[in-house]
Amino acid sequence: MERVRTTAQLAFLKGHGTENDFVIVPDPDNTVDLPASAVAALCDRRAGIGGDGLLHVVRSAAHPEARTMAGEAEWFMDYRNADGSTVEMCGNGVRVFARYLQRAGLVEDGDIAVATRGGVKQVHLAKGDDGDITVSMGRAVLPEDGVTVTVGGRSWPARNVNMGNPHAVAFVEDLEHAGDLYTAPAFSPAAVYPTGVNVEFVVDRGERHVAMRVHERGAGETRSCGTGACAVAVAAARRDGVDPSVTGAPVTYTVDVLGGRLMITERPDGGIEMTGPAVIVAAGTIDADWWETALD
Amino acid sequence: MERVRTTAQLAFLKGHGTENDFVIVPDPDNTVDLPASAVAALCDRRAGIGGDGLLHVVRSAAHPEARTMAGEAEWFMDYRNADGSTVEMCGNGVRVFARYLQRAGLVEDGDIAVATRGGVKQVHLAKGDDGDITVSMGRAVLPEDGVTVTVGGRSWPARNVNMGNPHAVAFVEDLEHAGDLYTAPAFSPAAVYPTGVNVEFVVDRGERHVAMRVHERGAGETRSCGTGACAVAVAAARRDGVDPSVTGAPVTYTVDVLGGRLMITERPDGGIEMTGPAVIVAAGTIDADWWETALD
Repeated sequence: MERVRTTAQLAFLKGHGTENDFVIVPDPDNTVDLPASAVAALCDRRAGIGGDGLLHVVRSAAHPEARTMAGEAEWFMDYRNADGSTVEMCGNGVRVFARYLQRAGLVEDGDIAVATRGGVKQVHLAKGDDGDITVSMGRAVLPEDGVTVTVGGRSWPARNVNMGNPHAVAFVEDLEHAGDLYTAPAFSPAAVYPTGVNVEFVVDRGERHVAMRVHERGAGETRSCGTGACAVAVAAARRDGVDPSVTGAPVTYTVDVLGGRLMITERPDGGIEMTGPAVIVAAGTIDADWWETALD
Repeated sequence: MERVRTTAQLAFLKGHGTENDFVIVPDPDNTVDLPASAVAALCDRRAGIGGDGLLHVVRSAAHPEARTMAGEAEWFMDYRNADGSTVEMCGNGVRVFARYLQRAGLVEDGDIAVATRGGVKQVHLAKGDDGDITVSMGRAVLPEDGVTVTVGGRSWPARNVNMGNPHAVAFVEDLEHAGDLYTAPAFSPAAVYPTGVNVEFVVDRGERHVAMRVHERGAGETRSCGTGACAVAVAAARRDGVDPSVTGAPVTYTVDVLGGRLMITERPDGGIEMTGPAVIVAAGTIDADWWETALD
């Protein structure tokens, strides 16, 4: 297939969900060459556009990794990390992805399906192009390990929650107690998280309303973490003696992250939905000379 | 004067000079309302476009702070810090500003004058829209104070250089010795820099060729600092026994910063010129809804 090198203008948008931010590259027919080095150049915050990741927007039928999902989901979120590597899913990213499709007139408000490397995700767009967006986030697994996390010589018991990726959720009296989260908090026993862990520190803000800070494995403290907010809501519910699989009623927690507010609903069947904002900041074209250099 | 609120599309570009990066807002007639809060929103790296600062491009005749310079310099660089505050000058910013004017066809290659809050600056554009750009950076003052800087329990003597802002230049054996420059290095005696200091750590790379890392006062370690590179070149020249005011010949040092390479020339009259790259990354328009929110 002919791939875009330097002739055509490369269109992009920038957007964010609770300040988890993305470079969006619309490419319905999958004709744009996006090697890891070019993704890293676009996501570079000073030498490029800047973003936590890149959302490559492709029709499922046009992408070899999504063709089998094309019958269920017209659009494929080819998500790339800021270093150009691929990852299965990103809850904040899916909302921004869906907002782009909505703004571009490629989908209607209401329920849509989005193909990701983590499977087809159900997405609900509230009416209006600034309404909240809801994304299915799968289920939580809560192993019964006793875990302890430590920051600055202070330790807390933590709840082990797996959302496809591992989390340790610690309830604290004050989010300041988590200190400087640049570096990873220590945890024990080490065997519980052989590949490291995302650590959330949580305080209560009101009834079924908490606030959190997060250290994301490999990234440091971030403004928002979608799976982390889900893990926190489930851990808070269990702490509060609430389990939808027992009561038969869904439960919703409000989770404030540094970058905004997320609503997490756990259904009786264990399915978790995350609702939150998605913002388009700007749209434009990448400079042709810059892009040629990025691809070299 | 009618100011743009939400009706017109706000155009922007993003660019950088040695990875000191800027949001560029072309506004020849000075009709765009840019309160500090809106500048901060645009420069926010996750919720906005992202930049170390903003270059508001205005005709000198159309700006109250530049009208008196309009006879000498057609264009005014209304430079804003990322928090929306104003500052006199930014050497890397002037190059990017001039590159924008050149790309937009608003100036010809060769010598141009740019109005800044620090006065009119002479700029030379090498031929071609990716050629190096040279900016007049004023003169260095070298007080004879003995200064010591300390990082991680290790101390070095430093040269005190004032480029309009204060610098302490320390020659070290290895740039790694400067450690983690997130926090400001300690210095003594405290009275030499009552408002703090920018600290440069320098190693030799070859004849009249050095490399540096810098802690910018109030900002932490940065990828580049124009006045810092000038201070380093002058300190290196004096260390090497070279003084153009004595020899009558200009001297040029190559100064590698983390974000690229700058050439610093000191003339016999003491005038310092900085030559380096300036890159336009992208151009586009700010989302009208986002901009309305940023202005509220």
